[in-house]
Amino acid sequence: MATGRLCPPIITLLTDFGLQDVYVGVMKGVILGINPNVRLVDLTHNVPPHDIAAGAFLLRSAWQFFPPGAIHLAVVDPGVGSDRRALAIFCRDHYFVGPDNGLFSLIFSGESAAAIVSLEKAEFFLPKVSATFHGRDIMAPTAAYISLGTPLTALGPSLTDPVALNLPAPRLEERRLLGEIIYGDRFGNLISNILFADLQIWRQGQPIGLTVNGHPIPHLVRTYHEVPSGTLLALEGSHGYLEIACRLGSAAQALHTGPGGQVVATLASSVERRPHAP
Amino acid sequence: MATGRLCPPIITLLTDFGLQDVYVGVMKGVILGINPNVRLVDLTHNVPPHDIAAGAFLLRSAWQFFPPGAIHLAVVDPGVGSDRRALAIFCRDHYFVGPDNGLFSLIFSGESAAAIVSLEKAEFFLPKVSATFHGRDIMAPTAAYISLGTPLTALGPSLTDPVALNLPAPRLEERRLLGEIIYGDRFGNLISNILFADLQIWRQGQPIGLTVNGHPIPHLVRTYHEVPSGTLLALEGSHGYLEIACRLGSAAQALHTGPGGQVVATLASSVERRPHAP
Amino acid sequence: MATGRLCPPIITLLTDFGLQDVYVGVMKGVILGINPNVRLVDLTHNVPPHDIAAGAFLLRSAWQFFPPGAIHLAVVDPGVGSDRRALAIFCRDHYFVGPDNGLFSLIFSGESAAAIVSLEKAEFFLPKVSATFHGRDIMAPTAAYISLGTPLTALGPSLTDPVALNLPAPRLEERRLLGEIIYGDRFGNLISNILFADLQIWRQGQPIGLTVNGHPIPHLVRTYHEVPSGTLLALEGSHGYLEIACRLGSAAQALHTGPGGQVVATLASSVERRPHAP
Repeated sequence: MATGRLCPPIITLLTDFGLQDVYVGVMKGVILGINPNVRLVDLTHNVPPHDIAAGAFLLRSAWQFFPPGAIHLAVVDPGVGSDRRALAIFCRDHYFVGPDNGLFSLIFSGESAAAIVSLEKAEFFLPKVSATFHGRDIMAPTAAYISLGTPLTALGPSLTDPVALNLPAPRLEERRLLGEIIYGDRFGNLISNILFADLQIWRQGQPIGLTVNGHPIPHLVRTYHEVPSGTLLALEGSHGYLEIACRLGSAAQALHTGPGGQVVATLASSVERRPHAP
Repeated sequence: MATGRLCPPIITLLTDFGLQDVYVGVMKGVILGINPNVRLVDLTHNVPPHDIAAGAFLLRSAWQFFPPGAIHLAVVDPGVGSDRRALAIFCRDHYFVGPDNGLFSLIFSGESAAAIVSLEKAEFFLPKVSATFHGRDIMAPTAAYISLGTPLTALGPSLTDPVALNLPAPRLEERRLLGEIIYGDRFGNLISNILFADLQIWRQGQPIGLTVNGHPIPHLVRTYHEVPSGTLLALEGSHGYLEIACRLGSAAQALHTGPGGQVVATLASSVERRPHAP
Repeated sequence: MATGRLCPPIITLLTDFGLQDVYVGVMKGVILGINPNVRLVDLTHNVPPHDIAAGAFLLRSAWQFFPPGAIHLAVVDPGVGSDRRALAIFCRDHYFVGPDNGLFSLIFSGESAAAIVSLEKAEFFLPKVSATFHGRDIMAPTAAYISLGTPLTALGPSLTDPVALNLPAPRLEERRLLGEIIYGDRFGNLISNILFADLQIWRQGQPIGLTVNGHPIPHLVRTYHEVPSGTLLALEGSHGYLEIACRLGSAAQALHTGPGGQVVATLASSVERRPHAP
């Protein structure tokens, strides 16, 4: 008997359904009706409604902290009922199930070895498929069948052209690195699209100036507590991205910004040479 | 050995306790102290405080998606500490536990085969029963004992007169079907009390006009994506009821309405004959 | 084989992370990667950001409803990245894991038999420890290893001086008992720091007058339903503390107060003798 059999399979759930309604509970009921031994873990259900980019960022931040074999059911699905496809994916030893709208495209980046199928076999759906809730009728049952060992190839035909999210990438411009805020968390921390490791390679140990929408961020530090309360700072966030925070406060409120805010890192030598520098 | 024994029993939880406090967690601790092998699934804890009708609608929308034998613990209990009874119910192969205030009455509709008992045996309660939190002290332990196989008859005397919710029913009036909004979900979708199947039987394929509080809903469609963004539409919601939505928007905001809003379906031939039709 | 082995170990989670982000889900992934058989129960994740006192109150209200051996992972950690210690504690047959900032100090009160260690062994951490998320990198793995049977002594050196919370205690003054509101719940109930049992011992059956911020609370009752709708009342809350409520309403709104509000109980005989009594 394989050791893996002894551990209950994990299905995580990430949606924009919120926690006011019973939509999430209903998906769990469907799953448990197919595989009563699966372990269910909520990632979040408070993705802003229909915000595929936020969902993709949150999923990308979470999936790799789960053990190999975990199945990630993600439903942010403004196109439900249209001809958008539904997908099951195996990539980097994890499974992903959800709509084909870019929600998973941050998982693939730099990874060509993913197996992807289009969900088209009605025997793995609920008997009645609604036109408005494929999370319940198609995707939840699919995740449950995968947890029982159903191979992806049984679920539908392979495809190689999943929808890719058109996300902003940081740009290099002379001695500046231009990025933007892609997510604001509950604490008002602002997460940028600049990987901290990339920032470090670019600056090569040189001091830099940082601004968000032109507002200077005075400190680039390792931990929040290195600056006084209420002070803006930048650091490597727990996601691995450059994060703008406010010690014991909210950077989002202090800077009146959120996703889309412009982040500019400037090599300090060029800061000194700026014509309009004080 | 019965096959059912191999699957951990399921207890779902639906309350108006919210997720700010530890009331839900405490009920789970009580349950796990009695049956450590039960599986706990949240339906929702954000029923509006004391709103029995909303709780009843949400429970009715969710329970049937769970496998037979599931135990549904539902606590929306404004009468706690009064002489309202607490109930355990077996109906349609599912168990229900909670206050006798109508919370379960949508489960019974058209079903006379329910077994109902009043919870009166203190040996199935916590040792100290408070005057303010029977969900913790009486109902959670009862659900846990049912999950261990305790028969309903051991929990207290049978009763046949559970409190029924006085919910609005759709009315037929000449060539009009009059209903109302009974729930608004997180997306701003407005769910009416008109079963879509009933609407279809009534209209017999004839075109209809639809209004909410007199505001016309221009499209009756099968899926959200059949109309442009920002357009109001009606369709069969995933609950099986006639639902008013706004493509990629909020019908609740567009129509400034919610539960209690008046829904009128008019057979199109009579629409044409309306004196004040354009 | 010990009976305890047959029950999956329980890890509860209490944080100020909210449910918008994936921070909680990520901690669960880390735990399940170490012990796939643990049972995870959320207490709450909506502790107000950085509010150690609220977290301590909520944890104190919940932990004792879980079976012995439960592990309570609590992360309200404004000092993350500073030199504050991280702790694992065994006390009253339960385990506690989290930052050393007073979050656990209400568990100890009147209890000297706690075993406490400082988490300093990197082999029980994630391979890469960030400067901003020790809940994920240090505390979650520690809770998981404890659930596998790792003894506290293996996790780091013992300590006897955990940080204590400086919480307001009720004061006796002539014939008055002075307390304050320490928590407001979702229903608008105001929980004071006066243990109801202490109030009863103090008043010795004598009638008392009660005020919150000088506003009289006309009824001291056993259950909410003893007064008409919209009426202010006081009773023994489900936490065991004197609680101010408003029947089918919100005492917090009616009294425009919350944590820090002043609660005064006055023996009725002295009420009658007050110079400024009506």
